[in-house]
Amino acid sequence: MRMRKKPWAAGYLESLPQIVTNPAIHRGKWASLLDKSALHVEIGSGKGDYCLQMAAMYPDIAWIAIERDPNASAVALKKSDGVLPSNMLWIVAEAALIIEWFAVNEISVLHLNFSDPWPKKHHAKRRLTSPVFLLTYLDLLKHDGEIHLKTDNAGFFEYSVLQCEGYHLTLIDFSVDFRRNAQTFDAISEYEARFMGLGQPIYRAVWRKL
Amino acid sequence: MRMRKKPWAAGYLESLPQIVTNPAIHRGKWASLLDKSALHVEIGSGKGDYCLQMAAMYPDIAWIAIERDPNASAVALKKSDGVLPSNMLWIVAEAALIIEWFAVNEISVLHLNFSDPWPKKHHAKRRLTSPVFLLTYLDLLKHDGEIHLKTDNAGFFEYSVLQCEGYHLTLIDFSVDFRRNAQTFDAISEYEARFMGLGQPIYRAVWRKL
Repeated sequence: MRMRKKPWAAGYLESLPQIVTNPAIHRGKWASLLDKSALHVEIGSGKGDYCLQMAAMYPDIAWIAIERDPNASAVALKKSDGVLPSNMLWIVAEAALIIEWFAVNEISVLHLNFSDPWPKKHHAKRRLTSPVFLLTYLDLLKHDGEIHLKTDNAGFFEYSVLQCEGYHLTLIDFSVDFRRNAQTFDAISEYEARFMGLGQPIYRAVWRKL
Repeated sequence: MRMRKKPWAAGYLESLPQIVTNPAIHRGKWASLLDKSALHVEIGSGKGDYCLQMAAMYPDIAWIAIERDPNASAVALKKSDGVLPSNMLWIVAEAALIIEWFAVNEISVLHLNFSDPWPKKHHAKRRLTSPVFLLTYLDLLKHDGEIHLKTDNAGFFEYSVLQCEGYHLTLIDFSVDFRRNAQTFDAISEYEARFMGLGQPIYRAVWRKL
């Protein structure tokens, strides 16, 4: 979902110490930069709801939120008065560049929450589970590293599950109605709560790198 | 779903030529018995709706329906006045015995439609996608043979998809809402139509033997 342009966003974000403007310089050193041993990365953090909650719930993990939209990023940072949890950093840039920001085997868990489904076939390459992205994730994930995916979009979920079949990934958790039971280990974003409120199922899959 | 007992069922079934009372004698020869080159087997055919329609839709395939309940079987046969399509046979027995009826690499496609989910954990072994069954299917399926599974039960679907991860099977088709588009290649049973009428999603997965 694209947000209305906020003219103040760019200037505001530049002023904040937890916005990383040159991610490549921390390549291979993210967890130690935040003094943690495990690194979780969310691609497409939107207004930050999920990652902010998870960073608070799991303070022993280093969390990196990636969001290409400066307007959504600015809203996320405003929510917490410009200060993220101390175990969290935020990158405003295209996810296609992650290969430059993270080292091989650096990431413990990659989170994809309610990613843009890009439903048209000729946009399939843009989906965050298209082959180019999966190959990148496999490079960047640790051995035994995981991809955690949640979505409300049946087509995107089906595409993602089928795509992952072709790679060195094994499905270790899978739900076609994740919220039918309480799942207190996993934060619920506003966006997710809205779909739950409509009675729509939340799909979730977890893959482990072989 | 268990049916009310029909005292006439056993006698009625015995009288019908397309009820196979000693399946083991046809082991390895089912397709040629029906003068076809491909063999499809449905386990848990219930009142026969799916298999009867599919046998009519695909007359070049040999179809075997397996149903342990003689009452459901008798209802299925009554529907068509005791005469199945000429490319179809019916077995009234426990699916656990299939290893004795079919030869290694004999089956092209195995169909599981709305199987009993056996939701209690201590009944997991009875599910038709439990490890003992999957190992049997892998034996009986041809190379490139397929398992086609449909269900309305989220828990059974999740269990089945996760179970199949551990075997020499690759997921080649997958849907969390199979009937959101017309799928004219696949018959809709009364049972399935009832769930569709309630607006409930139909889950479907297809695996190919590697």
